[in-house]
Amino acid sequence: MTGTTLTGPVLVVGAGLLGTSVGLALRARGVEVFLHDTNAEHLRTASGLGAGSPGIPERDVQLVVVAVPPDHLASVIASQLRDTAGVVTDVGSVKSAPLAEVVETVTPEELERYVGSHPMAGSERSGPLAASAALFDGRPWAVAPHATSRTDAVALVTELAELCGATAFTFSPEEHDEAVARTSHVPHVVSALVAGALAGAPAEHLALSGQGVRDVTRIAAGDPALWQQILAANAPAVTGLLREVRDGLDALLDALETGSRPALGEILGRGVAGTTAIPRKHGQPATEEAGVFVRVPDHPGELARLFGDVGEIGINVEDVRIDHDPGRPYGLLELTVAASLADPLLEALTGRGWLVHR
Amino acid sequence: MTGTTLTGPVLVVGAGLLGTSVGLALRARGVEVFLHDTNAEHLRTASGLGAGSPGIPERDVQLVVVAVPPDHLASVIASQLRDTAGVVTDVGSVKSAPLAEVVETVTPEELERYVGSHPMAGSERSGPLAASAALFDGRPWAVAPHATSRTDAVALVTELAELCGATAFTFSPEEHDEAVARTSHVPHVVSALVAGALAGAPAEHLALSGQGVRDVTRIAAGDPALWQQILAANAPAVTGLLREVRDGLDALLDALETGSRPALGEILGRGVAGTTAIPRKHGQPATEEAGVFVRVPDHPGELARLFGDVGEIGINVEDVRIDHDPGRPYGLLELTVAASLADPLLEALTGRGWLVHR
Repeated sequence: MTGTTLTGPVLVVGAGLLGTSVGLALRARGVEVFLHDTNAEHLRTASGLGAGSPGIPERDVQLVVVAVPPDHLASVIASQLRDTAGVVTDVGSVKSAPLAEVVETVTPEELERYVGSHPMAGSERSGPLAASAALFDGRPWAVAPHATSRTDAVALVTELAELCGATAFTFSPEEHDEAVARTSHVPHVVSALVAGALAGAPAEHLALSGQGVRDVTRIAAGDPALWQQILAANAPAVTGLLREVRDGLDALLDALETGSRPALGEILGRGVAGTTAIPRKHGQPATEEAGVFVRVPDHPGELARLFGDVGEIGINVEDVRIDHDPGRPYGLLELTVAASLADPLLEALTGRGWLVHR
Repeated sequence: MTGTTLTGPVLVVGAGLLGTSVGLALRARGVEVFLHDTNAEHLRTASGLGAGSPGIPERDVQLVVVAVPPDHLASVIASQLRDTAGVVTDVGSVKSAPLAEVVETVTPEELERYVGSHPMAGSERSGPLAASAALFDGRPWAVAPHATSRTDAVALVTELAELCGATAFTFSPEEHDEAVARTSHVPHVVSALVAGALAGAPAEHLALSGQGVRDVTRIAAGDPALWQQILAANAPAVTGLLREVRDGLDALLDALETGSRPALGEILGRGVAGTTAIPRKHGQPATEEAGVFVRVPDHPGELARLFGDVGEIGINVEDVRIDHDPGRPYGLLELTVAASLADPLLEALTGRGWLVHR
């Protein structure tokens, strides 16, 4: 760490959701940003939004941020390492496979200037119009140096993450890929499998769908074209974990077929343990929370009136969820609060005329 | 249908969450309710809440509602068919297995008075203190007559569902079990398997957890003791569907190992199709929606101020979600609205000083 400071110019290659958001965040901090994209319309849109100037800077580039689809990462990273003298990073979802390709095509000296990274932020939408300077605010941003990444290059990429408002976490490329396989890629494909089982179901069976199946399958709506690339690039880590899931599934099938309650209980208990292992809000450990359900007429002013009352009552709401069960002309809103505050909130809201239950 | 009307008395056996809620809902409609439970404290609590009178009525019971844990359903249904002359229903999560046991132990005449049912409502909490007359409001309630259920008995149980505020759907017991295996039991166990894979992960890997894995694993926090009973009782339907999920998992592993993009795309595309098959709010078909993200300082008055502004802007919010990524001293609230209203909402909120992005 040699007191590196990110002053620019920065070249962002790929003016989609992530590249444009990086440009917007850096411009907001006064850093000079140049943009490149083979799609002229994306480039025009992103520069029009204020994410940077189209073209390559005349001065040396301090940092190149490669923000192209997974299939094109390695070739663009390698060409940027050859064409510029600056540090090169990327914001791709997978780190080992592109690195292995880059190693094959650049010199050892060029390779030292590469440090992969991965902001844990995104949107169901894509393209520069979905971008925002606030996209990375408070999000984790993995910085994944390889064995010969230069120390000052690692510091510069860490500074990029922090300038964009994110919290940087350092991983080796292999650790990173294992971590996102577990926390993102495997949940995604398993969600897709459960959702796929609904696709062939009789419509009248789906009338019994509740909030649980909606939550489990929500992320399965993600873009298959993008996810094909992510999964293919992280196939080793994903297959390793999916084999563990399949072993768990086989154990479950065996427990169901033999009627072994202890085996069922062990699998379910391990699931409960997993839900408490996920870090919570503000990085705090899990605290006990409870839900309070409020009936809210389905028109604009009612949520305002409810939250006005909640604000006056002065109880902090940890989470809000609107229940989507069909057949009801109003919303059922679940307010999650600290367990000890659920009964006081219920009483206070009931006192103000709301229909509330736990 | 002979113009049956549910006038009572109704006997509710089992004063837990569901039984007490049924009692409260029926009492609110003026129906006479009696309560029975082997747990004296539950009985005292439920009657204290106004869910009915403890004890057995002197007059003939018109309807018995059995609301005991899955393992005890069959024996209690059978004893109620023998001990009373009324219609008997239950509110258990599984219908075929208890029916098969009941058939073995009652006369064909007694069996005609039994009609199983299943309200799709619950809570992470259990016991009478979690009960509410509003628990079934707008929820689906499956009515599952067997081959020799009397028509007037089916009508009476359908009326029970509607009096409790639910929407009744009729299924055969086998269809019901298949439907809930697909929409509830399989999502639950798969969620538990994904959550279980987190339980053994290094804590630093879990720092990369986003909203996706939180949603997929939320229901895995459910009570293992209750879910053991549900899964064991519905083992045939659950195992059938889980074998399909395992086939999908094997196809996925094969596609990852051979690098077959078309096969990956097919699995992911089927998942997308499944997410659109789930019925939406008010039973409407899926309409295009979009999310707008608002930065909300993490103290009580801010949600009120935000929803006050949203109310004045006059745009109807379809869903609300608070994003729990750690490391951020404020909440990121996602407001879901009709796709065509997302940009107008973004502009209007920005104009009122909120930090908003899509």
